[in-house]
Amino acid sequence: MDNIKYENGTLYLLDQTLLPNEEKYITPKSKEDYFFAIKTLQVRGAPAIGIFAAYAMALLDENKESLKSYLDSARPTAVNLSWATARMLKAYNEGKNLIEEAVAIHNEDKEMCRKISEYGLSLLNDGDGILTHCNAGALATSNYGTGLGPLLLGKEKGYNFKVFTDETRPLLQGARLTSYELEKAGIDVTLICDNMSSLVMKQGKINAVLVGADRIAANGDTANKIGTSGAAILAKHYGIPFYVLAPYSTIDFSCETGKDIVIEERDGDEIKTMFFEKPTALKETKCFNPAFDVTDSELISAIITEKGIVKQPIKEGLKKLYD
Amino acid sequence: MDNIKYENGTLYLLDQTLLPNEEKYITPKSKEDYFFAIKTLQVRGAPAIGIFAAYAMALLDENKESLKSYLDSARPTAVNLSWATARMLKAYNEGKNLIEEAVAIHNEDKEMCRKISEYGLSLLNDGDGILTHCNAGALATSNYGTGLGPLLLGKEKGYNFKVFTDETRPLLQGARLTSYELEKAGIDVTLICDNMSSLVMKQGKINAVLVGADRIAANGDTANKIGTSGAAILAKHYGIPFYVLAPYSTIDFSCETGKDIVIEERDGDEIKTMFFEKPTALKETKCFNPAFDVTDSELISAIITEKGIVKQPIKEGLKKLYD
Repeated sequence: MDNIKYENGTLYLLDQTLLPNEEKYITPKSKEDYFFAIKTLQVRGAPAIGIFAAYAMALLDENKESLKSYLDSARPTAVNLSWATARMLKAYNEGKNLIEEAVAIHNEDKEMCRKISEYGLSLLNDGDGILTHCNAGALATSNYGTGLGPLLLGKEKGYNFKVFTDETRPLLQGARLTSYELEKAGIDVTLICDNMSSLVMKQGKINAVLVGADRIAANGDTANKIGTSGAAILAKHYGIPFYVLAPYSTIDFSCETGKDIVIEERDGDEIKTMFFEKPTALKETKCFNPAFDVTDSELISAIITEKGIVKQPIKEGLKKLYD
Repeated sequence: MDNIKYENGTLYLLDQTLLPNEEKYITPKSKEDYFFAIKTLQVRGAPAIGIFAAYAMALLDENKESLKSYLDSARPTAVNLSWATARMLKAYNEGKNLIEEAVAIHNEDKEMCRKISEYGLSLLNDGDGILTHCNAGALATSNYGTGLGPLLLGKEKGYNFKVFTDETRPLLQGARLTSYELEKAGIDVTLICDNMSSLVMKQGKINAVLVGADRIAANGDTANKIGTSGAAILAKHYGIPFYVLAPYSTIDFSCETGKDIVIEERDGDEIKTMFFEKPTALKETKCFNPAFDVTDSELISAIITEKGIVKQPIKEGLKKLYD
C-alpha cells in the first residue's frame, strides 16, 4: 500500500482521515498544506510523517530553517518528524540534492520496515492470535510497517494469524486503518473496542501483543498511542508477551526515561463529536484527550528495531545498540 | 432523576437511547413494546430493568408465566430481570395486587440505593478523584443509583469529587448517561475514552474506582459492562481500590464462580456503525462484541450492597451475608 508517492515532481498523499470509506490522494502545495496534513492526521504514523516532511523540505521553496521549525511544531511528540527535517536541513546546508535525499529517506524506511518485520516474525508462530493497538502498518510507514510488519510479511510467507485490532479511540486508527489494511492483505482480522482486550486475552485468544512507538526513551519507556500502556498492563497480568516494533530512530537517547516525554493533549471535543452523528455528551461536559501514554519499560517483553531484538533488561540492551 | 414513572395507570420510561441529546418519555403498551425497550436498551441497568419488568408484569393482560419467560429472554445476563419477574409471578399466584407489588419493588429499590450510597460514601474522602465505567447511576436504578450513588449522595452532603468517566464503548453509556447525569447533578466530571484510564491513574488523578454489577457469583467474581475487568486490572497495577456497588439481589449464589456466567454477545455491527456518521471499518470486517466481562474476585477491594461492605476475603464475606 503506497500511502506516500512521489511522481514527476508531485507528492501524492493518501488522505487517511477519509479511510476506510474513501481512498483519495491529495497533493499538498504550500507549507500550510503540509502542516495541515500532519496536524489533522491526513498523514500519521511517526515514520510516514518523517518521510512526508522530508519531501516537504525538498519541494517547498522556503527558508529551510524556519520551514523545519514550522513543520516540527505540527506534531511535537513524533521524534521522526524532527529527525527527518534535521537530516534534510543538514543535506541542504551541505548542498546536496534534496529530492534525492527525501527519496533516500523513503527507501531506507522501506528497508528498515522489512528488517523489523523479519525480526518480529521470528518471535511469532503460525496460527498465533495477535492483539494490535492503533496503526503501525504500511499506512504509518512504507510497505510492511513496523507493528503490523510481521503480520504482513508473515502473510506473504504463508503464516495464518488471527488478529484482533483495538479500534483505538478517539481517532479510531485501529478500525479505520489497521482493520482496513489487514483486511485488504487477506489477513484474518477481528475488530474490537479497546475495552474488550482484557476479555479476549482472558479467553486465551492472544499469544502476543504488537504495537509501534512514537518515542522510546533511553531506558525503554515507550510513548505510543493512548491506550498502549493499558494493553501492556493487561498483557503482563495475563502472561502474554508485549512487543514494541519501531525504527531505531524512534529511540531518543537524549531522553532518559518516560517522565521526560511530553504528552500531546488534543482538543477534548474530538472525544464527543468526531466521527459521531450526534455529540455523545453535553456541550458543557469537559473532556481530557491525551494523544499518547507512556508504557513503562518493565512491561515490555522486547523492543524490535531494524538493528535487532532487544529483550529484558531493555535499558542495557538499548545502550548496546547505541554504543 | 426519574427514569421510570408510574402515574394514573400509565408507565413512563425515559428513553435512554436518545440521551444526552433528547429527553423523551415513552409509554410502552404491548408486551412487544416492553421487550423492545429492554432489548434495545431504552431501559438499562440491572435494577431499572427489574423495576420496568415488574410494571410490565403488573400492567399487561397476558398469561403471566409465558410473559415472564418472554421478558426474561430480552437480557439473559441481567439477574434482576428474572428476579423481579419471578417475584411478580409469585405475587400473582398468591393473588396479591400486582400494581402494589411493582410499586413496592420500585420503592425498595430507592431505599436500597440510599443504603448502598451511604456505605459507599463511607469509603471515600472529600476531594477524591474517582473513575467510573458504564452507568450505574439513577438512570440505571432509581434515585441515587449504585455505582454512582456515593457521588450523588456525597454531592448532597457537600463532598467535592473529581470524577472521570470512561465513555464505555460501544454503547457509550459513560458518555451519554453518566457524564450527563453527573453534569446535571453539578458534580465535577471529565469524560475520557476507555483506553485513557491507565494514564489518568498513572497521573495520580484517581483515588478509587466505582462500578456497578450485572451479576455477582458466590465467590465474588463480577459480571459487569465490558471493560470493567480491564479497569480492575489497571487499578490493581496502580494500587487503587476497586469497588463494586450493587444490590444484594445481584449476587447469584447458585452461580459458584464467574466461569458459570454466560456472557451476552451483541451484534458486531454495533461497533462499526452505531452512533457513527459513517462506518468505521469495511463491511466485510468481522467484529467481536461481548456486552460484559467478568472481573475476578481477587481484583475487587470490596463489594458494597445494601447489607453492608464486604472486603477481602470476599467469598467468605458474601457467604456470611447469605447465611
